Amino acid sequence: MKNQSPQIRDVAAIDLGSNSFHMVVAKVVDQDLQLVSRHKQRVRLASGLDSQKNLDNASIERGLEVLAMFAERLQGFEEDNVRIAATHTLRQANNAHIFLQRAQEVLPFPIEIIPGVEEARLIYLGVAHTQPESDSKLVVDIGGGSTEMIIGKGFEPELINSKQMGCVSYTNRYFANGKLSKKNFANATLAAEQKLESIAHRYRKKGWDIAFGSSGTIKAIREVLIGLGFEDGLINAKRLDKLVEKLCEWQTIDDIELAGLTPERKPVFAAGVAILSAIIKDLKISEMHFSEGALREGLLFEMEDAFKRSDIRMRTTENLASKHLVDLEHAAKIKGQAQEFFQQVHSDLSIKKSSELSDLLEWSALLHEVGLNISLQAFHRHSAYILRHTYMPGFNREQQRVLAMLVRFQRKALKLNEMEEFSLYKKKHIIGLIRILRLAILVNGQRNDDPLPPLSLTVDGDKWTLNSDEPDWLEHNKLLHADLLTEQEYWHNVGWELDF
Amino acid sequence: MKNQSPQIRDVAAIDLGSNSFHMVVAKVVDQDLQLVSRHKQRVRLASGLDSQKNLDNASIERGLEVLAMFAERLQGFEEDNVRIAATHTLRQANNAHIFLQRAQEVLPFPIEIIPGVEEARLIYLGVAHTQPESDSKLVVDIGGGSTEMIIGKGFEPELINSKQMGCVSYTNRYFANGKLSKKNFANATLAAEQKLESIAHRYRKKGWDIAFGSSGTIKAIREVLIGLGFEDGLINAKRLDKLVEKLCEWQTIDDIELAGLTPERKPVFAAGVAILSAIIKDLKISEMHFSEGALREGLLFEMEDAFKRSDIRMRTTENLASKHLVDLEHAAKIKGQAQEFFQQVHSDLSIKKSSELSDLLEWSALLHEVGLNISLQAFHRHSAYILRHTYMPGFNREQQRVLAMLVRFQRKALKLNEMEEFSLYKKKHIIGLIRILRLAILVNGQRNDDPLPPLSLTVDGDKWTLNSDEPDWLEHNKLLHADLLTEQEYWHNVGWELDF
Repeated sequence: MKNQSPQIRDVAAIDLGSNSFHMVVAKVVDQDLQLVSRHKQRVRLASGLDSQKNLDNASIERGLEVLAMFAERLQGFEEDNVRIAATHTLRQANNAHIFLQRAQEVLPFPIEIIPGVEEARLIYLGVAHTQPESDSKLVVDIGGGSTEMIIGKGFEPELINSKQMGCVSYTNRYFANGKLSKKNFANATLAAEQKLESIAHRYRKKGWDIAFGSSGTIKAIREVLIGLGFEDGLINAKRLDKLVEKLCEWQTIDDIELAGLTPERKPVFAAGVAILSAIIKDLKISEMHFSEGALREGLLFEMEDAFKRSDIRMRTTENLASKHLVDLEHAAKIKGQAQEFFQQVHSDLSIKKSSELSDLLEWSALLHEVGLNISLQAFHRHSAYILRHTYMPGFNREQQRVLAMLVRFQRKALKLNEMEEFSLYKKKHIIGLIRILRLAILVNGQRNDDPLPPLSLTVDGDKWTLNSDEPDWLEHNKLLHADLLTEQEYWHNVGWELDF
Repeated sequence: MKNQSPQIRDVAAIDLGSNSFHMVVAKVVDQDLQLVSRHKQRVRLASGLDSQKNLDNASIERGLEVLAMFAERLQGFEEDNVRIAATHTLRQANNAHIFLQRAQEVLPFPIEIIPGVEEARLIYLGVAHTQPESDSKLVVDIGGGSTEMIIGKGFEPELINSKQMGCVSYTNRYFANGKLSKKNFANATLAAEQKLESIAHRYRKKGWDIAFGSSGTIKAIREVLIGLGFEDGLINAKRLDKLVEKLCEWQTIDDIELAGLTPERKPVFAAGVAILSAIIKDLKISEMHFSEGALREGLLFEMEDAFKRSDIRMRTTENLASKHLVDLEHAAKIKGQAQEFFQQVHSDLSIKKSSELSDLLEWSALLHEVGLNISLQAFHRHSAYILRHTYMPGFNREQQRVLAMLVRFQRKALKLNEMEEFSLYKKKHIIGLIRILRLAILVNGQRNDDPLPPLSLTVDGDKWTLNSDEPDWLEHNKLLHADLLTEQEYWHNVGWELDF
């Protein structure tokens, strides 16, 4: 990590939501984070998703326009000091990669598409940092396309969920006619309750001391309630019922006139109220406070300490390894060997010595055998399945896919047609890591304690050479020699060259 | 289970191996198993697999001919008293279903294709029952296409593996020229060592008190060693080295003339010796005894107590549920509900009241949420992945696939194009179970302790009706009503009818 100065650095976090894009800019002065500015632009990306789940051109253009505005503000910022997270709509969109490509042209910082549960974790972090500590918190965030619900203590989330319901999507589905009726509200609320059904009992059972709502939807509800005379701004079931009644006094959404409700929020307000009603009721929330912290603050606070995210991912990796009963001693051996090889060849591969890629290699080494917990046969595929589908706090979707690919290709024939495309990482770098990981695993294949002679890996174009100071090292180890020959054949079949 | 008489029943077990088919017939007299006859026919099924992994006609005909012979011996046997297991070659063959279909015509008993690890478990059982108990046993079985290695205590296997190497496949690969040379032996042994590499350390670490070999390959080696003057018939590394030297005195496999070696065994003997050499060396086996027990005895002993296999599968299910942290209370509730519905409709579905299908329904209810251990999102797919790929002692491959299908279709849209074909079970029965499981899960969707009113399920052709004694039961439960409407829509989309 490079800092602009050892004491002060400018940082920014951007959240590409389904309804709005937000940016917060801050200064880190020693250990202290000072907010400098907040920016919000309504984009309504979600409404640009067609029935085939492709973003239409208009919404892509709206999004890019906002990113271009943000880019002006971020001129001169270092890459490591900007974090951009995209949520529900870009998770859903089949053509998200096109948006990402074009976004790179106007805003030259990496954009991470994060899983819903990761979004939830970061929201919790954002709220936890902006609220005085309490014994335990419930945090609810209703976005344009998804709703996050988290229970945690201090900075530790303990129960995390993200559900595909949001004020934009529910407006389209249950208020498409623009009509405000008891029936539309009842349908929307019932649909939300169906979504909550599988998790509500666990939340009620776990319980919390204080409940917070965050982000635009809940903020708007709070402000409207204040406008209606509930000056403490607290949200509860009775007040929401009254709000629904009040809303039903108007015929259509366009007619609504409520103090505290901005014109921008108006179109999706009713759906937001319906979703929150369902949550308040099903989770049995007696009262809900509003918190200023949200996803972007979570991103920001995680940047405050440059190593925090790395720490979280390390802990995620260790937890996953232990949950799946990984042989930690062997995993550590592979990790050490992979790091050694990486140090020897990273500059030939034009990968920075200490970079996200070197971290990913390390984590893949620790996790390459998680799939053994399912079965020995084809365990590399099971490892990949687990790493692709498990919620891994701290990792964005592409990083999970990279880990899945690394472990998928750790052994056996190189069916490279199964290799995926990446947008944050270069394919040739991933392939370099695959080669390193395979060799690290291969030379330790016998899993015994006989020390290997010092090995050196060199790269010359597409030809990799594994060598040792001991000239006849392979004479003493016929099995390793046979394994290297098999590996050479695998590499040869995909046009790579391995020499030893 | 029906018995021919309460005291005596005739039972038989058949093992469709890659080299030979075996049958053992026995009588169960009270708790005692008395062997009546053994039958062995060489089929060399493995050599009929072409490069596309299809069994050729000639080998299918050879197999069917032997099955027809066995069928004569089994006339009058009850279905529950015959167990037939197929191993490596039929696991591999892409057209195994064709063999199974034709086999049904000559031998009207179900044939189960069992996973390699399940084969290993049964072999261990076969050896454990025919040997005096000892503290711990290593059992090695080299078949035509696969080799099983098990360490266990008493009747409990503790370390189980099956590797794809066998005397038929290794003959084709390393002695294809029919030549006996040091080099061919060294290549075959080294290849076997590569196969063992990933597991040998665990076997050495675990250790055992006494090592046994079972089945034809090791039996032949033992007899040849006796013929060479080693009258105790024990197998060790030194004697195998001598045997290899002896074999290399002949130019070709056809030339071999050794006391104790049958003409039938001769073609695949050298490959068997090479594989056993690798195992003896890598696992550091000081001496190996021969045991008469093998796969077919394992099958037989598991039939001795009609409920033993059911017990094993129940234990497998419970272990898997606990390994993946299943909410056991909820799983038990779903199991109870599913059993209740099953009792109400089984005769309409023409499924026997107490049958394997009702067991499978029960187990799928216990395991339907294992996938939650990977992630909440799409957990039904993760459950299916785990049940398809985990080694589940006591289950054959098709039963695992049935469980995977049941949990795959437990919720959400019915993408029936993902439904598989079965040969032991009727698709319409599986679909019946899916409907039952879905409804059992659905009515308990809220996971609360509010008791449901007594529910009754009736079937009229393709139309299923869920009803209650309480006339307005759905008035009190709007959420359940909404869930049933959603479910009705899912059913409607695939042409099923649900009424309530």
